[in-house]
Amino acid sequence: MKLGFIGLGHMGTAMAANLLADAHTLTVHNRTPAKAEPHVKKGAKRAETPSAAAGGEAIITMLADDAAVEAAVFGKNGILDALRPGAIHISMSTVSVALAARLAEAHAERGQLYVSAPVFGRPDAAAAGKLFIVAAGPTAAIATCQPLFDVLGQRTFVVSESAPNANVVKLSGNFLIASVIEALGEAFALIDKAGIDRAQYLDLLVSTLFGAPVYKTYGGLIAGERYQPAGFKAELGYKDMSLALDAAQELEVPMPLASLIAERFRTLIEAGGKDFDWSALGLLAKRDSGVATPLKPTNQD
Amino acid sequence: MKLGFIGLGHMGTAMAANLLADAHTLTVHNRTPAKAEPHVKKGAKRAETPSAAAGGEAIITMLADDAAVEAAVFGKNGILDALRPGAIHISMSTVSVALAARLAEAHAERGQLYVSAPVFGRPDAAAAGKLFIVAAGPTAAIATCQPLFDVLGQRTFVVSESAPNANVVKLSGNFLIASVIEALGEAFALIDKAGIDRAQYLDLLVSTLFGAPVYKTYGGLIAGERYQPAGFKAELGYKDMSLALDAAQELEVPMPLASLIAERFRTLIEAGGKDFDWSALGLLAKRDSGVATPLKPTNQD
Amino acid sequence: MKLGFIGLGHMGTAMAANLLADAHTLTVHNRTPAKAEPHVKKGAKRAETPSAAAGGEAIITMLADDAAVEAAVFGKNGILDALRPGAIHISMSTVSVALAARLAEAHAERGQLYVSAPVFGRPDAAAAGKLFIVAAGPTAAIATCQPLFDVLGQRTFVVSESAPNANVVKLSGNFLIASVIEALGEAFALIDKAGIDRAQYLDLLVSTLFGAPVYKTYGGLIAGERYQPAGFKAELGYKDMSLALDAAQELEVPMPLASLIAERFRTLIEAGGKDFDWSALGLLAKRDSGVATPLKPTNQD
Amino acid sequence: MKLGFIGLGHMGTAMAANLLADAHTLTVHNRTPAKAEPHVKKGAKRAETPSAAAGGEAIITMLADDAAVEAAVFGKNGILDALRPGAIHISMSTVSVALAARLAEAHAERGQLYVSAPVFGRPDAAAAGKLFIVAAGPTAAIATCQPLFDVLGQRTFVVSESAPNANVVKLSGNFLIASVIEALGEAFALIDKAGIDRAQYLDLLVSTLFGAPVYKTYGGLIAGERYQPAGFKAELGYKDMSLALDAAQELEVPMPLASLIAERFRTLIEAGGKDFDWSALGLLAKRDSGVATPLKPTNQD
Repeated sequence: MKLGFIGLGHMGTAMAANLLADAHTLTVHNRTPAKAEPHVKKGAKRAETPSAAAGGEAIITMLADDAAVEAAVFGKNGILDALRPGAIHISMSTVSVALAARLAEAHAERGQLYVSAPVFGRPDAAAAGKLFIVAAGPTAAIATCQPLFDVLGQRTFVVSESAPNANVVKLSGNFLIASVIEALGEAFALIDKAGIDRAQYLDLLVSTLFGAPVYKTYGGLIAGERYQPAGFKAELGYKDMSLALDAAQELEVPMPLASLIAERFRTLIEAGGKDFDWSALGLLAKRDSGVATPLKPTNQD
Repeated sequence: MKLGFIGLGHMGTAMAANLLADAHTLTVHNRTPAKAEPHVKKGAKRAETPSAAAGGEAIITMLADDAAVEAAVFGKNGILDALRPGAIHISMSTVSVALAARLAEAHAERGQLYVSAPVFGRPDAAAAGKLFIVAAGPTAAIATCQPLFDVLGQRTFVVSESAPNANVVKLSGNFLIASVIEALGEAFALIDKAGIDRAQYLDLLVSTLFGAPVYKTYGGLIAGERYQPAGFKAELGYKDMSLALDAAQELEVPMPLASLIAERFRTLIEAGGKDFDWSALGLLAKRDSGVATPLKPTNQD
Repeated sequence: MKLGFIGLGHMGTAMAANLLADAHTLTVHNRTPAKAEPHVKKGAKRAETPSAAAGGEAIITMLADDAAVEAAVFGKNGILDALRPGAIHISMSTVSVALAARLAEAHAERGQLYVSAPVFGRPDAAAAGKLFIVAAGPTAAIATCQPLFDVLGQRTFVVSESAPNANVVKLSGNFLIASVIEALGEAFALIDKAGIDRAQYLDLLVSTLFGAPVYKTYGGLIAGERYQPAGFKAELGYKDMSLALDAAQELEVPMPLASLIAERFRTLIEAGGKDFDWSALGLLAKRDSGVATPLKPTNQD
Repeated sequence: MKLGFIGLGHMGTAMAANLLADAHTLTVHNRTPAKAEPHVKKGAKRAETPSAAAGGEAIITMLADDAAVEAAVFGKNGILDALRPGAIHISMSTVSVALAARLAEAHAERGQLYVSAPVFGRPDAAAAGKLFIVAAGPTAAIATCQPLFDVLGQRTFVVSESAPNANVVKLSGNFLIASVIEALGEAFALIDKAGIDRAQYLDLLVSTLFGAPVYKTYGGLIAGERYQPAGFKAELGYKDMSLALDAAQELEVPMPLASLIAERFRTLIEAGGKDFDWSALGLLAKRDSGVATPLKPTNQD
């Protein structure tokens, strides 16, 4: 397939490499051009602008946040004016439900197709083609995308014909992860002060009712206090909780736990934890229990 | 081993039956005598009082709450005055950390041994001898208990020589379960209003990062809205959150999430959900999102 | 002074009447034209569009929310293109800090002046010219506005030369009021169940440490359970908590209490309380304590 | 009247002095005997034990917490065995609702009378005889106490014939104060970061809707960041929130705001603020907004 790919961060680079290896014709664009270099060496074409990458059957965006996607789509030399009727914009980064709705509408007005397909998985899973993909959008468009999803992920979940619903699912999933992190953080702070061994406690958890990747991964980070380098930064965790709360506001659903977690991230960030892994909510819980104050206030750096 | 067993509720009945089947000599006591009948038929002796059950090498208590254990141990015809020096009181129900500390001290004063060994698992796991046992206490005492634990459970985790620490772990575990329930409740309320299929959403969760028994069990109950009959009642969930917060107060650990969940249980109970399964926090989240009000106010019954 | 006035709701009507009575030349505009009628009878000119009201030295906007102000300023036939250089836009309704910043910038680009001047006070205070006005903006512009503020209010507080800061103060004030309402709601639910007399309890509060208008007004509404008709609707309370949280996010300030109150309003609204007075958080607290369920679910109406 | 007085801390000393000055015959007791000295010099008799102070018509306890009152009443040489039938125990310190109920019952069993009469006011108000007294108990007993209350306070509020209800009112009042403190703390953190002047902001608040002693006192402490020396320590604030939550649990009333505030106090204490004034919740809000970290972790001192 003739594809465009915009956004060559940790995740995007791994994903683009897999698509290229699968013999797709890839035109890549990144705001910082240097990041396109390795891909060009492997056969990708370089696009100077988003619109220059939008000439094929589909274009994937894998960007940091709403603002980056808005710029790439609606901005000068944006995708919107370049994409052909019938071509598909596949938005795979974690953006707001509201932006997904706006994208779906804008593309539809131009006879273009829009699919939301956010992913679960860290960069290593992206590199291994083992992402979980949550897709929503017009059935035919998703069918067209399926071979791409098969390259990028281990399984695709098609949740709705309404594209923004994939973003609802993705954001609710990140909320579930964050709630596990906060709960583990508080639990570890408690057993710490009781003098119970952290590693043994984690072993107990994952050997019994909590034997899932989310507990192994985040329990391991908290038990080992490995908050840097970040796999997923606290500020991104905060961003996603804010987007989840925005969705809850729009759908009129009270989410008191989500609100509490958003405040915890905000506090963590103001305590200096912006660039820590989002599992550093565990560090915050420990700090709050009076045991240690390893965080530095951001504003005094 | 010559054993006493006090407390023949759903859990205790299944556990006592397994011990009896393993050829232990069992003397059973229950406040409501009729519940002892089936065990007596299978060869157990009946004790009219707690003290009458305390003549052997060890006595297990599996009772509803602190008050019941206090009555059985410190009350008239209680265990404390009957247990021989060197004999072991094994407290397997979920009681407060403070009571465990008081029991450890009282038994030690009399040359008796005390082991806290609360369990994870519902009655069906108890019947199958598949409980997870969290044990703490003097090393030698636990070694003596191990053959019993092997009959009752699939695995024993020895977490500390200080008995009350087993209760800290048990309560923290129930807090982790409750936090999963609350998070799932809010997430389901959100995806419901977005029109996403509940069963498909649950399948996505347990197929990806959340593939643990805690998500399968409680996700299944919430997705299917099967809140009655209760496997574990909301009022017990509330009790355990209160005990967890008591432990947090004693150990001086802020636990904002635990506080929030305690309030949610309190609200659920006042809304009429006392006897619902504790997963009915999911029903509360749905009610709060304006979709349905299936709960009846307790006070107007 | 030659003035424009846009927004003739309960508040705006009372304010415009006072300005007219003070011999100002007033051109009024309202989206629903009928509401301009009484003012026209008293000598005001009618403007068919916002821009038609913007020909004088200053124009006041007193509109429902951000969207209404955006439409009146940036929309077709908006204020922005009609206001003369040096003329002042006085924004007196409760809008977001972000919109105030955008307005300040847009007006400055055109050589126009912008003052944020939100008010504390209900319609009866507006009618009596007894509002409290929180003003911020360029010093000279505020000096020009002062005679108008003296007609509309009993006191003006000039808090900053940066206009959006008046909105920060206004929103923080509404947060303080809402926190009093939530606290009183919980306190009344408690003393109710203890069988203590509501009126006597309120008398005790306002006779001791809590003798301020905020306790008298909202304590009176809660003690008397007078939630309808609304002086200030729950949905507006929710809106203002959301705007306060937006400001907190922008300024990077964790506000856990503000988050909790926003969730309470959301829950109240979904329970059917959208059009109740915002003091109906007290009704929610009572409902949650199991005593009564007078609210109807919105979605089943 | 022939009176006993137990508890000569800051509050008790001022109260006892006023009673003595009003020509009552006073027998005083304090655990640390030296504190009785100044009163003895002014004519009071010294009692070596609580029971030795209980020979008159009434005895007042003004002690730090539940444990101190329990020791003085139920302990060795306690009040309970010494008080004559018909004599009155007036409990004026802030104790739990449960203890008040237990005291009422224990005294009644012996034909003694019990009155709960907790107070609002700091030591300076006690010295000036300007306390507010919240009284509950048998009508005749309160009538007997009234002349004493008239000496100690500026006004007495009789809230119920059931003594523990005075404690419900007192604890709910302290909850209302704490909620004001937390709200002000967050509001000041917000306006601080916006660059708004603290003193001017406070003036605005107390000149408009918030002109009550609670805002003047605590707003002044927070605006001026005068957290030491403490008028009322954070650890006492935490204790009272815990007692309020205990009452809420007993009366089955969800109080999410009270729970949040209890967690804030716990966090403040673990951050090193145990001996700060309870208004230091404002310092916590400021710390959490990343502006300053003046608190030291308790556990590392």
